[in-house]
Amino acid sequence: MSLQSSRKRRKKRITSMEKENQTKAEQEQEQVQDQVVNPWEVSAKGKIDYDKLIDQFGCQRLDQSFVDRVFRLTSRTPHVFLRRNVFFAHRDFNEILDGYERGEKFYLYTGRGPSSEALHLGHLVPFMFTKYLQEAFKVPLVIQLTDDEKCMWKNLTVEESKRLARENAKDIIACGFDVSRTFIFSDFDYVGGAFYENMIKVAKCVTYNKVVGIFGFSGEDHIGKISFPPVQAVPSFPSSFPHLFPGKDKLRCLIPCAIDQDPYFRMTRDVAPRLGYNKPALIESLFFPALQGETGKMSASDANSAIYVTDSHKDIKNKVNRYAFSGGQDSIEKHRELGANLEVDIPFKYLSFFLEDDEELEHIRKEYGSGRMLTGEIKKKLIDVLTEIVERHRAARAGVTDEMVDAFMAVRPLPNMFN
Amino acid sequence: MSLQSSRKRRKKRITSMEKENQTKAEQEQEQVQDQVVNPWEVSAKGKIDYDKLIDQFGCQRLDQSFVDRVFRLTSRTPHVFLRRNVFFAHRDFNEILDGYERGEKFYLYTGRGPSSEALHLGHLVPFMFTKYLQEAFKVPLVIQLTDDEKCMWKNLTVEESKRLARENAKDIIACGFDVSRTFIFSDFDYVGGAFYENMIKVAKCVTYNKVVGIFGFSGEDHIGKISFPPVQAVPSFPSSFPHLFPGKDKLRCLIPCAIDQDPYFRMTRDVAPRLGYNKPALIESLFFPALQGETGKMSASDANSAIYVTDSHKDIKNKVNRYAFSGGQDSIEKHRELGANLEVDIPFKYLSFFLEDDEELEHIRKEYGSGRMLTGEIKKKLIDVLTEIVERHRAARAGVTDEMVDAFMAVRPLPNMFN
Repeated sequence: MSLQSSRKRRKKRITSMEKENQTKAEQEQEQVQDQVVNPWEVSAKGKIDYDKLIDQFGCQRLDQSFVDRVFRLTSRTPHVFLRRNVFFAHRDFNEILDGYERGEKFYLYTGRGPSSEALHLGHLVPFMFTKYLQEAFKVPLVIQLTDDEKCMWKNLTVEESKRLARENAKDIIACGFDVSRTFIFSDFDYVGGAFYENMIKVAKCVTYNKVVGIFGFSGEDHIGKISFPPVQAVPSFPSSFPHLFPGKDKLRCLIPCAIDQDPYFRMTRDVAPRLGYNKPALIESLFFPALQGETGKMSASDANSAIYVTDSHKDIKNKVNRYAFSGGQDSIEKHRELGANLEVDIPFKYLSFFLEDDEELEHIRKEYGSGRMLTGEIKKKLIDVLTEIVERHRAARAGVTDEMVDAFMAVRPLPNMFN
Repeated sequence: MSLQSSRKRRKKRITSMEKENQTKAEQEQEQVQDQVVNPWEVSAKGKIDYDKLIDQFGCQRLDQSFVDRVFRLTSRTPHVFLRRNVFFAHRDFNEILDGYERGEKFYLYTGRGPSSEALHLGHLVPFMFTKYLQEAFKVPLVIQLTDDEKCMWKNLTVEESKRLARENAKDIIACGFDVSRTFIFSDFDYVGGAFYENMIKVAKCVTYNKVVGIFGFSGEDHIGKISFPPVQAVPSFPSSFPHLFPGKDKLRCLIPCAIDQDPYFRMTRDVAPRLGYNKPALIESLFFPALQGETGKMSASDANSAIYVTDSHKDIKNKVNRYAFSGGQDSIEKHRELGANLEVDIPFKYLSFFLEDDEELEHIRKEYGSGRMLTGEIKKKLIDVLTEIVERHRAARAGVTDEMVDAFMAVRPLPNMFN
């Protein structure tokens, strides 16, 4: 699983045989040639059309009533990502909230594909949000590090994938998760036992033609790729964690993730009832845009397309000033007259993700949108906000010891996970 | 893995896309319509043509020079299955013996797919032979119980597959393996860690088109089947057993099995050098024929086609007398004149598997082949021999406790495995 995959255009080699076996929704996805979204590729000719994506995938829009309801149920201000529709779509989130209101617990599941040393800000989005959900609802959380996936897709060695998984675990821990409610695991360490049993149960329910329809594999793809979807599916089932949820096979699971992960969980939700499990619920985010503009996700292969948690204040200043796509006008005169185009302005987008103060953001929207505020000013604000986040993260990460990683990754019961 | 799979004719659905990606050898296998041999199907219009199989698969015939050499190297009479060419083909067995002569150790790997409660005599063949190899060469042995495979192919529940694996382990232990040199494991218990790492490494090297070519999967097969070949491949690599062979990545592996398992290990041998491992060596047996005649392997779905280790003396007498296909002539007069056709006579075939005394077998060959001995006499001899084997096995199995099963299946070092 990864919230942020690279935006490579992959040549589609869907043969006619495979075509026949696709569902209507899957065929439609193929036909929309100007937009490709799957766990390994996010690309669009212009901006990603998220409404179209919701239609294609068959998930639901997360409207204001959900934000209000979460506020009511948790008695705390909903997270900025919820207030500002960064998490904009869902599957059965209403059922999770219905159950919660009746006193029924659930657990959170998210993950990361450890393909790089340093995380960028987009990588932090799901973890920041998941931390909020864990605190607000007081529920346990499992975090899957798919080192097996990255070993296969990125052609890393097993050892390097495992090393990156541990390094990434430190960044995740630095987000502030509660060790008494959080189990982090890497597939290379944890696959086996009840988890493997569930993998086999899922694999039995999914044909090759089905995964070709969902994920677009070709006959020349290796069988590791074809085998992988059940690995990402089974953390959705509580019985995959017998040390955490013994006898709680009906416990519901809520998955915060970016919308490109939806195909995995469409497959999982299709299979779940046949195995006697609940369908996992989802709460799905937009992609965090690249500095160069909002047509997809950030690229790991271009260091200047993203702000990394290892970037210095100087790096951030340089990247924002040089690369952040601006919606401001060409000349000051024109800018004062027309104002900035906030729809495409990356500094404003970034602030809407990371500036906590709603009133200040609203003020910027008005001032910058009307042309009273200049691009340089908003970029300066953004540099300050990002520097603070990155420096706070770096300080927190420096405090994460190997013992803390071991503690989060130990296969152990969590007796107080619902308290 | 199973030595004895059922003989169902499976409809081949190889599409043209898949066809293109088959190797020449694999295409030839398709074309030989009168004979299909793969891990899940063994069928022929007449008798299995083993010479043709050797050509198709690309393995070598095991000739008398091997039998003599094993005699010399082990200073004991080679096993009846070796003397009588039940194990008739090999891959790199010469290299195993070369190494052994230089003082280089190896380990044995065999297995069983636990799909039935009671074993029949065909199931015992590889285990009887493997026990002999273990004793003669004084080497460690790993036995894989593919409960995951049977859960998927036979549509058993996980729980039932695991129960059958343990029951079958008792029959295997009853063959007399040395607990200080033998590790028995079930996939549902043991897959994970170093074993899973090797599964991923193998899976990365094998395309979907390749497994279609080797195993004949179709797009409507579930992905569990496509994921399985690496599971059977990786016990060939010593690093899959870090508790047994730490730091011994170059230790060679010898696999005694029936020839229908060759496709798995063709794939494994193809991949091994790319992962820095030795290719596993193989020593491959004929199929143990059904009572009704030698056209393939026995069918688990027809209880009268095989002698089970649970059969009573009365059962055995009844089955041999009623069902064992005879090469004797229709009338005593004709029989005295022409003699029995030993090529098709099942009682004689069975005796050549299980009658230890070479001279006595030779005597029967002459007397029965010339017509001096009648079918009733040879059947009586066979009933005695089989009854003794089955009763001895039953007595041994009755002595196998749950504690013994736990001891064989414990993940533990075997400090004296090469002594």
